[in-house]
Amino acid sequence: MSTTIQRNMPKPAVDWFRPAMELETELKQIELRILHQASQFDPGAEGYVRYALQGGGKRLRPALVLLAGKAAGGWTEPIRDLAVIVELVHVASLVHDDVLDRAELRRSRATCNSKWGTELSVLLGDALFAHALQLATKLEDAEVARKIAEASRNLCEGEILQTQRRFDLKMSTTDYLHMIGLKTGALFRVAAEVPFLLHEAPVSRREAARSFGYQLGLAYQIYDDVLDLVGTCEESGKTLGTDLKKGKWTLPLLHALQTLPASESESLRAQLVEGAHGVVTKVVAAGGVRFSLRKAVELLERAKGDLEVLGDPQGELRGLTERFQAFLRQMEV
Amino acid sequence: MSTTIQRNMPKPAVDWFRPAMELETELKQIELRILHQASQFDPGAEGYVRYALQGGGKRLRPALVLLAGKAAGGWTEPIRDLAVIVELVHVASLVHDDVLDRAELRRSRATCNSKWGTELSVLLGDALFAHALQLATKLEDAEVARKIAEASRNLCEGEILQTQRRFDLKMSTTDYLHMIGLKTGALFRVAAEVPFLLHEAPVSRREAARSFGYQLGLAYQIYDDVLDLVGTCEESGKTLGTDLKKGKWTLPLLHALQTLPASESESLRAQLVEGAHGVVTKVVAAGGVRFSLRKAVELLERAKGDLEVLGDPQGELRGLTERFQAFLRQMEV
Repeated sequence: MSTTIQRNMPKPAVDWFRPAMELETELKQIELRILHQASQFDPGAEGYVRYALQGGGKRLRPALVLLAGKAAGGWTEPIRDLAVIVELVHVASLVHDDVLDRAELRRSRATCNSKWGTELSVLLGDALFAHALQLATKLEDAEVARKIAEASRNLCEGEILQTQRRFDLKMSTTDYLHMIGLKTGALFRVAAEVPFLLHEAPVSRREAARSFGYQLGLAYQIYDDVLDLVGTCEESGKTLGTDLKKGKWTLPLLHALQTLPASESESLRAQLVEGAHGVVTKVVAAGGVRFSLRKAVELLERAKGDLEVLGDPQGELRGLTERFQAFLRQMEV
Repeated sequence: MSTTIQRNMPKPAVDWFRPAMELETELKQIELRILHQASQFDPGAEGYVRYALQGGGKRLRPALVLLAGKAAGGWTEPIRDLAVIVELVHVASLVHDDVLDRAELRRSRATCNSKWGTELSVLLGDALFAHALQLATKLEDAEVARKIAEASRNLCEGEILQTQRRFDLKMSTTDYLHMIGLKTGALFRVAAEVPFLLHEAPVSRREAARSFGYQLGLAYQIYDDVLDLVGTCEESGKTLGTDLKKGKWTLPLLHALQTLPASESESLRAQLVEGAHGVVTKVVAAGGVRFSLRKAVELLERAKGDLEVLGDPQGELRGLTERFQAFLRQMEV
């Protein structure tokens, strides 16, 4: 990994995600609600659940729920519940991700599997997920649980595709976008759409919110994958550089493989097969990182288009999107 | 393991579970519906899902749904859906169980993890589970999804307790019954109760059905645990004798530990710590297996009490319960 690349990365990585004071206050309440979920479990499971929930993290999905909720008509109890539910689904998937990746660290803290092993972590993820679904079924509007369950299934399907295509040199950028759409896009989509559903907004606004959330999710996953390739551990608080080692080909690499002259692409493939040393420099040189960041910016541009229909009276969703764009453009330098 | 014990075991183990012709025909339709679920997944995941669903198995939980459905007022579409949903939750938990137990065989067939490894199997279980919940949220009565989600969470909590208390020599028979109540009782409870909910039966009948399903589930888990200790692989189609090796202390052993004179109990504990050789013979001699089978028979007796309130016009639930009792008594010989 080239130090020049590292030096160019702005930090902290959440610069674009600077919630307004009002949102920050509300997010603190949501945080308490998230942690409170642990007490709903059998005493034998409670401690593990609490640890998993205390991970902190950016709580991006709850923030999206709140911003969409505000744009849709205001923060109601079901919208606060939704913020908790989407985060629980996300945390459940992280617990399982860390099992699959045998990751040691997440947000600078020992992962559940490094503390308690695979068995407990698999079950812990299951329990968190089941609890999230249970909360969703308690909301008055049954459509919400339906959407959460669907997004959760998509998330799993995306992860299955990712696992199945590890080390697959025939994977295309289209396959990648389909995969991250399931893995990340679906939950962002629900986070943005459901507040409009809860506020009984017209279908056109709901559809626009769905699309906005989906594009934002794709852009975020692309960014996260770029970070794994050229970021620093400090920035992300997790073990980086694991994607290449685990054979997860992400957009920068796939773009490089697709656009490099045949001979160079061939030699890059050979390098990947041999253990991925020196691949990052080549991917960067081939413009894979730049392409990916631009792709993310472009997706966010589309998301901004959705905001016209969605209606964003305070302009906060636009603000978030534009800060994210500016941040990605800065990474490109 | 003593061969005398093995010879005394009647087989096949499903003798008591002899569905009437009408039920058998309906169960074949449910089987097709279960297999059909695979086609609902992303093409990249479909094949794995199909394999997991094709495992066959006794489909005990769907049979319970159908029998309860008949007693409650007849087989309707939501009741057929429920039969599929409870089995999907069960299959999802088996896929994860096999990951945790590193089991090679399940129903005489390679487990998902032995075919595709931990990663894919964790995700496959997640996807099956999410799909089950999604189906549940599609039913008109939102209460159903709530109950399925709760039972699923209980199932995970039970498994967490089981994992957490492995090799715990302080575990009591009460702890064991609490654990299997979460792990197995909860899903049987839902399978028996929800048909009455769907038929809008009075609360007293619903409560009786809940209790009936719960006792049946406890009795079934006790039986299944006895089988792991003294059954044969032929009978059960899975790798047996794993509970002791994995430090899962089940009722026969816990009873022996609690009732043997202090010195013998101490020596049994020491044997467990040293690797469990010769433990089965001692547990059998101490009456642990006999006690467990009688406990199961007693639970089924209570379940029969529930049938008075529940209402079982064709006597099929009673028939099932009594055949199971007779089967357990035969095992005792």
